[in-house]
Amino acid sequence: MKAVRHGAKVLPEHARAHNRSLVLQTLFHQGAMSRADISRETGLTRVTISDLVAELIADGFIAEKGVREASGPGKPAILVDLDRDGHRIVGIDLSGSESFIGAVLTLDGDIVVRREVAAPATEDVVATVVALARDLVADSHAPVLGIGVGTPGVVDDRGVILTAPNFGWAGFDLESALEDALGLPVLVANDANAAVLAEYTFGGAGDDVILVKVGRGVGSGLLAAGQPLRGSRFAAGEIGHVTVGTDGGPVCVCGKVGCLEAWLSVPALTARLDAVADRDGILRDAGERLGIALAPVVGALDLSEVVLSGPEELLDGPLAQQAVETLRARTLAQFHDGVRVRMTAQGQDIVLRGAAVMVLSGQLGVS
Amino acid sequence: MKAVRHGAKVLPEHARAHNRSLVLQTLFHQGAMSRADISRETGLTRVTISDLVAELIADGFIAEKGVREASGPGKPAILVDLDRDGHRIVGIDLSGSESFIGAVLTLDGDIVVRREVAAPATEDVVATVVALARDLVADSHAPVLGIGVGTPGVVDDRGVILTAPNFGWAGFDLESALEDALGLPVLVANDANAAVLAEYTFGGAGDDVILVKVGRGVGSGLLAAGQPLRGSRFAAGEIGHVTVGTDGGPVCVCGKVGCLEAWLSVPALTARLDAVADRDGILRDAGERLGIALAPVVGALDLSEVVLSGPEELLDGPLAQQAVETLRARTLAQFHDGVRVRMTAQGQDIVLRGAAVMVLSGQLGVS
Repeated sequence: MKAVRHGAKVLPEHARAHNRSLVLQTLFHQGAMSRADISRETGLTRVTISDLVAELIADGFIAEKGVREASGPGKPAILVDLDRDGHRIVGIDLSGSESFIGAVLTLDGDIVVRREVAAPATEDVVATVVALARDLVADSHAPVLGIGVGTPGVVDDRGVILTAPNFGWAGFDLESALEDALGLPVLVANDANAAVLAEYTFGGAGDDVILVKVGRGVGSGLLAAGQPLRGSRFAAGEIGHVTVGTDGGPVCVCGKVGCLEAWLSVPALTARLDAVADRDGILRDAGERLGIALAPVVGALDLSEVVLSGPEELLDGPLAQQAVETLRARTLAQFHDGVRVRMTAQGQDIVLRGAAVMVLSGQLGVS
Repeated sequence: MKAVRHGAKVLPEHARAHNRSLVLQTLFHQGAMSRADISRETGLTRVTISDLVAELIADGFIAEKGVREASGPGKPAILVDLDRDGHRIVGIDLSGSESFIGAVLTLDGDIVVRREVAAPATEDVVATVVALARDLVADSHAPVLGIGVGTPGVVDDRGVILTAPNFGWAGFDLESALEDALGLPVLVANDANAAVLAEYTFGGAGDDVILVKVGRGVGSGLLAAGQPLRGSRFAAGEIGHVTVGTDGGPVCVCGKVGCLEAWLSVPALTARLDAVADRDGILRDAGERLGIALAPVVGALDLSEVVLSGPEELLDGPLAQQAVETLRARTLAQFHDGVRVRMTAQGQDIVLRGAAVMVLSGQLGVS
């Protein structure tokens, strides 16, 4: 028997917060509209909408944006929209092996300022992130709604880094450490989990998708029915050390043989490309291994697409092509013949933009 | 950009239905308690609880169950509980190759009447199910809350069978056909998806679990964070025709080589066991293939356990043992060394009990 979920209760103040998010969500996705439009879209009464809109204008989240000419008699409708210049978001991406990048973003996820700093020694990571965030907050011409951080490692739902070997973190509450230093709301998540949010909100991904992030390591972020998967130990998406196939393979840095990461990580791929002349063959082999590893996941979750993030010169082309061919060959044609494998169109900005989505979602309830 | 989800709005009547479910859910999981206890558990006011309890008593879903002796001064508290005899549920399992089984169940999922009929010719399936359901409704000593049906095939969220080759169904609205014939609420789902609900509600499964159902074919049902996974085409869990390994294997009925079903289905296993003397070796091979197929799924979803449903004499023992060894060897020890593979303790009743959970959830909001 399960414990009752206390989060499920609906109290009046929760309904209000929920309705507030609903108004923001509607404007976020549909743009400027009248109060009457919002009422129609949300099913909430005109009175409730007028009330919420007044409150959201006072808080600086929405603004009146002129009038729409009346098509018939009566006074023209005043349009309201998210005040896309009323607030900014700071996003930070710690997944680069050479550098950390950060940005000031609009509520629409557009990057207006970008900064990059060299990746520091392990013991200086927090200080470096704090300094980068402070500079970005100072860069912003509007109040900063919050700071989103995408980091390698396994992160729980309160922003505690359960493990991040690159930084020597285990059980480290990065979210609190940064909030204390910066005095602003901070949200921390795994980099690939941030990336899949960006792909969903800004990149046109479907509701059932895996984003595979290829860099020094290989990780992924998954959505099922548009909801992020977290896993029993917050380790959902950790597919880098799953063994691929039953015919051996390269030795992995973890000591096992044939891990996906040993086939697909940038260092592993680059080393093999440097060693042999058959570039396409190497890339096709890696794509085939990706397809072998993902076929059971595509089948079990009935995913409609696989999105790749990482160096285009490696991932786009023969690798992605072979991955989709292998996926289709190894799953049930009836359901998965249409599965797609594509590069993200968001390039290097994907984690930064995902970090912005975390803040939009955490602070405004918009997703 | 996503369309706004209209389902997300919280209107007063939704809050009331939600709170009603919350009271039922609390009693379902915790048993008899006082109105004051319910108020404390749910965070809802005493007035709201008194109101909801009165309504639920009038509807025959809960009942007063005596008093608890007062430990201090004041009058003893009246206990209320689900009226576990006030309603019954009918569950039907169409997954057997030889027969259909049906049962009358209590709200706790206990089976009080069971019936079995020979599986009919394809064209008689609906008539057979209707007759079985009518008999079971007549068997019930209390009003029937609804009828849950677990069936092979891919079923959408409205009970339309998208495809069920065994019965020749494609795009067939079984739920409406049965509701029209029976005049009671009907809920239809895939048999393995029903089974995982039973394992979650009655079998002690964790929040992140796959239930693998082995019979004529091989299917599965998955929960992530306690929520059923449906997939982009309602085909989540369809892992029978995922290719396992990169070293060939038996030819599958689908024509491909090395599908999980060709290794693990009851007919495939039985045929191999009949042909050779090394029973343990055959079972271990099948378990290894199950582990190979599931390793990427366990990694991607960070599942804590794999539950097996099907013939114990085949699945329990060397097969399950090898499956867990293979799973652990092919995933990251840090996260998945604790992953378990076990038989369900619910035997043949698992789909019937899952069908009851569908009705509890659909009609009372209890899960």
